[in-house]
Amino acid sequence: MRHPDHPTTPSAADVLGPYLREQAACFLRGLRLHREAPADGGTHGAEEATAALRHAARRISGTLRTFRTALDPAWADHLRTELVWLSGTLARERAYADRLGRLLEALHQLSGTSLPAARTSSPPPGDGDRERAALGIGAARAGALLERRLTLARTRAHSEALQALGSSRFHGVADAVALLASEVPLAPCAAAPATEVLYAPAGLAEQRVHTAVASLPADEAVEPYDEARDAPWHRTRVLLRLHRYAHEVVRPAADPALAGAGHALDLHRDAAEAASAASAAARTPRIAPATAYALGVLHAHQRHEVGAARAVFRETWPYAAAVTAP
Amino acid sequence: MRHPDHPTTPSAADVLGPYLREQAACFLRGLRLHREAPADGGTHGAEEATAALRHAARRISGTLRTFRTALDPAWADHLRTELVWLSGTLARERAYADRLGRLLEALHQLSGTSLPAARTSSPPPGDGDRERAALGIGAARAGALLERRLTLARTRAHSEALQALGSSRFHGVADAVALLASEVPLAPCAAAPATEVLYAPAGLAEQRVHTAVASLPADEAVEPYDEARDAPWHRTRVLLRLHRYAHEVVRPAADPALAGAGHALDLHRDAAEAASAASAAARTPRIAPATAYALGVLHAHQRHEVGAARAVFRETWPYAAAVTAP
Repeated sequence: MRHPDHPTTPSAADVLGPYLREQAACFLRGLRLHREAPADGGTHGAEEATAALRHAARRISGTLRTFRTALDPAWADHLRTELVWLSGTLARERAYADRLGRLLEALHQLSGTSLPAARTSSPPPGDGDRERAALGIGAARAGALLERRLTLARTRAHSEALQALGSSRFHGVADAVALLASEVPLAPCAAAPATEVLYAPAGLAEQRVHTAVASLPADEAVEPYDEARDAPWHRTRVLLRLHRYAHEVVRPAADPALAGAGHALDLHRDAAEAASAASAAARTPRIAPATAYALGVLHAHQRHEVGAARAVFRETWPYAAAVTAP
Repeated sequence: MRHPDHPTTPSAADVLGPYLREQAACFLRGLRLHREAPADGGTHGAEEATAALRHAARRISGTLRTFRTALDPAWADHLRTELVWLSGTLARERAYADRLGRLLEALHQLSGTSLPAARTSSPPPGDGDRERAALGIGAARAGALLERRLTLARTRAHSEALQALGSSRFHGVADAVALLASEVPLAPCAAAPATEVLYAPAGLAEQRVHTAVASLPADEAVEPYDEARDAPWHRTRVLLRLHRYAHEVVRPAADPALAGAGHALDLHRDAAEAASAASAAARTPRIAPATAYALGVLHAHQRHEVGAARAVFRETWPYAAAVTAP
């Protein structure tokens, strides 16, 4: 597999092959764990197995996308589509569970039920306490409403994930990944040095993130309550993830700054989706005004968290924001 | 009026007398302007006149409080009580008008009707737009509800202010201030140097602010959604105002840092009261859930502004936060 002219320089195949084989092995291990977990679902083991499957599926599909030129392109495109479908399907159950947890925690915090010590040491009850008590009633109802809605969505997502894992489509994916674990379908150019074949696409993935970050709205212009402006942030999150995976392939050490910035964009996405869930719940017919009020408070609170996540991303992002494409 | 032993040192009377006479003259000028303004109220001239009256009344009552020992104490206590009543009564109309303006502006901003240019340049309509449209309906209703409630409160406050200005109680205050404009009822000690008589009480007023600021909750512990914790901030605002007025008396030049910090605490109070108004409106019986939802968003948004005002105060406050009373 060594390039004849560079006997000591690793070829693209030397770099890409072991990475993809390792991720394929992780995928298969996750699948085995999932089959061994109790069938009634919702257990810790099944969740961990699903997380491992998603984790590997995202890395394989990201690698197939970024390094497509070093691989058999028809095979890469097909498997990538299938892995994106799979990881999306598997992610939903967990996303609904996390969203409910985030919203209930925020309601708890906003309605002050989590602050009994602080309240007993406070001055005599005033307007604040009355507001808080009023919010408390609505918060309890809003919490119950969100729990009903998101638990239903989660249950559906769980069934869909189980269906997906039992489908012939999934068996096709599993077979393809099993093959990948033993042999990676490479393009002829993969015999050339990694520096020639892999660095350019990895650099392009990095450049895409820089361009996306540079085109994010300037700090002062940020209006975190304007959901219509979330899209460039979500796009940046996806591009940063692709860059991180490409970085894993071509560099020996992980970059903790990239992980930190990625985490801030994950929180951004979580807060934005939680805000949407609060606002969608408020459109439930015939809810009490107190419930709607608490959902409005919750919506604004999560949108504020969106703004906070953007600030954290800006602080975490290790490169000058002015890097733009020529 | 000079102290016999210090012919070149100004006495307390030399400092306090001119300041109080000047503020009394401002009060009387405001009163004359108010009488000359059209009787149907709500005009710019009447508003300006009321602002001048409040401005002078606050400065006189603050001075009577801080420098009580240099004044006839029974007279100072009585006039101070009357001026506090008067400035409180006169402040309410303006406060309701400002609160309504602040809330309508925030609703406008939150429901996005102020961002047509930004929206046309946005990507195709997504969840954000739907949320925004849903918020828009509730925002319009919430705006109408707030307008009804706060206009009613403002009209009542206007009538009360007019009644107060026509009352015998007010005529008593006006007579006392007219007397003050010509002669300040001083204590015998006011003949001593200002440095001996006025600096200690002015220093105490300053020390009270430092103590109050030092006992404000630490930045990290701040929970801007917890209205029960506003009280120390409001107390600091009042103490800072007293300190600013005492500073005006004993120092020739104004301290712009004190004015900036005071402005941040004014914004803090305004946002906290606007949040309360939103939450009180949400307790109106039989409102639509969409209205309550928008009021909830508005409440959280104003509480977020409370947090922002605290941050600005901390940045503006020119002294180390660690200054504490021994």
